[in-house]
Amino acid sequence: MTSDLPAPVLPEQPASLSPEAARALFRGGLRVPTSGWSAGWTQANLIALPRDLAYDFLLFAQRNPKPCPVLDVTEVGASSSPLFAGDLRTDLPAYVVYEHGEPVAEVDDATEFWRDDLVAFLIGCSFTFEAALGEAGVPVRHIEQGRNVPMYRTSVDCRPAGSLSGPMVVSMRPVPAAQVATAVRVTSRYPSVHGAPVHVGDPAALGITDLDAPDFGDPVEIRAGEVPVFWACGVTPQAAVMASRPPFAIGHAPGHMAITDARDSAYLVP
Amino acid sequence: MTSDLPAPVLPEQPASLSPEAARALFRGGLRVPTSGWSAGWTQANLIALPRDLAYDFLLFAQRNPKPCPVLDVTEVGASSSPLFAGDLRTDLPAYVVYEHGEPVAEVDDATEFWRDDLVAFLIGCSFTFEAALGEAGVPVRHIEQGRNVPMYRTSVDCRPAGSLSGPMVVSMRPVPAAQVATAVRVTSRYPSVHGAPVHVGDPAALGITDLDAPDFGDPVEIRAGEVPVFWACGVTPQAAVMASRPPFAIGHAPGHMAITDARDSAYLVP
Repeated sequence: MTSDLPAPVLPEQPASLSPEAARALFRGGLRVPTSGWSAGWTQANLIALPRDLAYDFLLFAQRNPKPCPVLDVTEVGASSSPLFAGDLRTDLPAYVVYEHGEPVAEVDDATEFWRDDLVAFLIGCSFTFEAALGEAGVPVRHIEQGRNVPMYRTSVDCRPAGSLSGPMVVSMRPVPAAQVATAVRVTSRYPSVHGAPVHVGDPAALGITDLDAPDFGDPVEIRAGEVPVFWACGVTPQAAVMASRPPFAIGHAPGHMAITDARDSAYLVP
Repeated sequence: MTSDLPAPVLPEQPASLSPEAARALFRGGLRVPTSGWSAGWTQANLIALPRDLAYDFLLFAQRNPKPCPVLDVTEVGASSSPLFAGDLRTDLPAYVVYEHGEPVAEVDDATEFWRDDLVAFLIGCSFTFEAALGEAGVPVRHIEQGRNVPMYRTSVDCRPAGSLSGPMVVSMRPVPAAQVATAVRVTSRYPSVHGAPVHVGDPAALGITDLDAPDFGDPVEIRAGEVPVFWACGVTPQAAVMASRPPFAIGHAPGHMAITDARDSAYLVP
């Protein structure tokens, strides 16, 4: 989407922006990954599907809670929800539109594609626990490098539900070997935003052949003494769309999340 | 249901029975509350609804996770699931059949009422954490007294979903004041089987006027120095059925649960 408005400017301190302020920038056309934005506010993956697929998807999520933790579901045709006071059609940095499983458009405003029969699902995102990792002294490399998090399709199949099936997608963060246990402990306290890692240290066991060639996002540096740690990822619903080829779907562009009105602390268990 | 088989006999040590052995007794006609049965194995609430209500119910559960934690969902028309290898139509001690929200039959075999278009939902049950309460030294009065747990409709409305709405139902256990914190701590480690109490100590705040007159189950003794502690209860879906009057539904008789093939430890968080 292009417009006659001035090009939006990247804020100097995106971590300090309120969800409302961040969403206004994205609504204005700013298109950046949101890792590190609006510290303390929960970010979410988006998948919007026609109503006649909504049960299959909600069941898919119930059967695959690690990659697909459902945080909120809109009413049919609605573009906001209790968790997200903004407009889901415009207030994310970027969207992917799918027809029969094929990405047919990548846009920063999904209004012209939105349909009255869509149900939008907000799915937990591992960005939620990145601040807690940082506070525990665990480096978050893609933030350090100013990149999108690397994400990979795996050889692990999700449990199917109705017409939906597909592989689990994971995000990867390199963690110094001495801090892997801390990373597991910290993230396991956020079970509804992917929680503990699904895998530590062996990409091949997940069918990942080249960490430098992620399926989504950007590669990051893995330093000597660091172990690749894999968390279930909320791009999994889009991988299911690509594998299962429903007639229509809209997702967020991976890494370009919905910044919600919920606090990260709401998803922290004792 | 009557039959020519000999009347089933209550086993001396129901806690030591395997899920399979317990289910065989119930299939044979034994009709008792299951609190304390098959120690270490997870018990579940049942609600079976026609397929065209399944999305509304799954969304209702997503929006009300404290009373309605979904542990498993059958395929349409199926009577078993990965979590429950028995037959959901016969292997619970007792069932309630609803038409337009009215209980029209209470049976120990639901086979004649089961329909090909039913989807069965297994919902977490607070019996799951009762063994852990006992191990922590917290008394579980209804087990001590050999009764069904007392359950109450509250004045707290669930968040509606589609055609389904209704009040939250709670179970109550009297806890000595000095042990309330322990009871909270222990049960909060089981978030997917109702988790921490929703309320401690003031029945009136939940709209409960008489603890001796529960809406489901049996009253239990509350001793001097004990506080009534309330947990969200998996009978809530049946209260929604009674309030929302869908054409058809089958639930378990409150307190007469599905004994599953999952271990309680599967629902324990760190």
